[in-house]
Amino acid sequence: MQYDKKEIDALDRVMRLKIINSVTGIKPGNLIGTINKSKNTNLAVFSSIIHLGSNPSLLGFISRPTTNDVGHTLNNIKQTGYYTINHIHSEFVKKAHYTSAKFPSNVSEFSACGLSEEYIDGFKAPFVKESTFKIGMRFKEVIDIKANGTVLVIGEIEQLIFPDNAFVDGDIDLEASGGVGISGLNTYYALKKIESYPYAKLNEIPQF
Amino acid sequence: MQYDKKEIDALDRVMRLKIINSVTGIKPGNLIGTINKSKNTNLAVFSSIIHLGSNPSLLGFISRPTTNDVGHTLNNIKQTGYYTINHIHSEFVKKAHYTSAKFPSNVSEFSACGLSEEYIDGFKAPFVKESTFKIGMRFKEVIDIKANGTVLVIGEIEQLIFPDNAFVDGDIDLEASGGVGISGLNTYYALKKIESYPYAKLNEIPQF
Repeated sequence: MQYDKKEIDALDRVMRLKIINSVTGIKPGNLIGTINKSKNTNLAVFSSIIHLGSNPSLLGFISRPTTNDVGHTLNNIKQTGYYTINHIHSEFVKKAHYTSAKFPSNVSEFSACGLSEEYIDGFKAPFVKESTFKIGMRFKEVIDIKANGTVLVIGEIEQLIFPDNAFVDGDIDLEASGGVGISGLNTYYALKKIESYPYAKLNEIPQF
Repeated sequence: MQYDKKEIDALDRVMRLKIINSVTGIKPGNLIGTINKSKNTNLAVFSSIIHLGSNPSLLGFISRPTTNDVGHTLNNIKQTGYYTINHIHSEFVKKAHYTSAKFPSNVSEFSACGLSEEYIDGFKAPFVKESTFKIGMRFKEVIDIKANGTVLVIGEIEQLIFPDNAFVDGDIDLEASGGVGISGLNTYYALKKIESYPYAKLNEIPQF
């Protein structure tokens, strides 16, 4: 199939959403956990979490601007300054997916979707107990993306927890840790390790 | 394993790079193809391509600032205004990986790594012939990320090509299209579809 810009613009809205949300390829499957000042917790599936740098350890994610219906996650992060990122595993993919429904802000997706809040070492935001790979984040800043009114939310890693068996040959193995990928808005994938290559040095390029 | 910020900062540099580059979970495996004003082509593996929005169809990626050694991709994009995003498939994962070596700007990774330039319908930037899922992008803007000196490069989709058999039940299937994920800096994963769920509506939440 081949579409140019005009043909993409002419696609039915839902079809365009589905296709354009899939074209980057596989996306990481994570749940972001937050709590607001009134101690209401929130949990939401995000497929837009991205590595920004390792020194300092910065991660970003894309959010729509806050309205009554959407943006509870960003709203809570701005209120308290902390959030958690929790890998989705195949055992609770369905529960994770349904956190994407538009629950009112006083309903916690933790209880509505059957997942458990976990507080670790005094960290202010709730982790997901069912996840074995989780990150405690401190909010740094929001950058406006004027092209479409979304924002890039940036935070720094303050806590990092993952299972010992996810560390294989000096590196993290996402098949061993049971990581899950997302395509588009609602399809979930398991991961099967193919190959690991060394850091690519100019004097070690194979003959292709 | 559990690390707090102090322990992360104290990690050996390479170990920290490997771990922090993996914590977001699986990342999409793509090659970005460009050409500069002097008609030198460039091809580079990127794991930071991200969906920003579907109307208009915007994608972003993270780049370090241009120096003599790195940033040829961004440099070329700024010169010509166009670039291509090409899914990596398992058949050429090794070739794709070695595009990450620091080749001089007058050496094309297409020929150095055994991949083929393809020009489609007058689009200015080179596609990767070996990839069956490819996107022609028009450059929109660069947004500075002051927290660590990286940038978010934003473009709009102008051409979209994918195989007919990747379209399954009204949605793109990345297992059928042979998509590949990346963990950290150098590990590649195949994708196995687990499950697809409907758009999550509040009055259709299962009993968990």
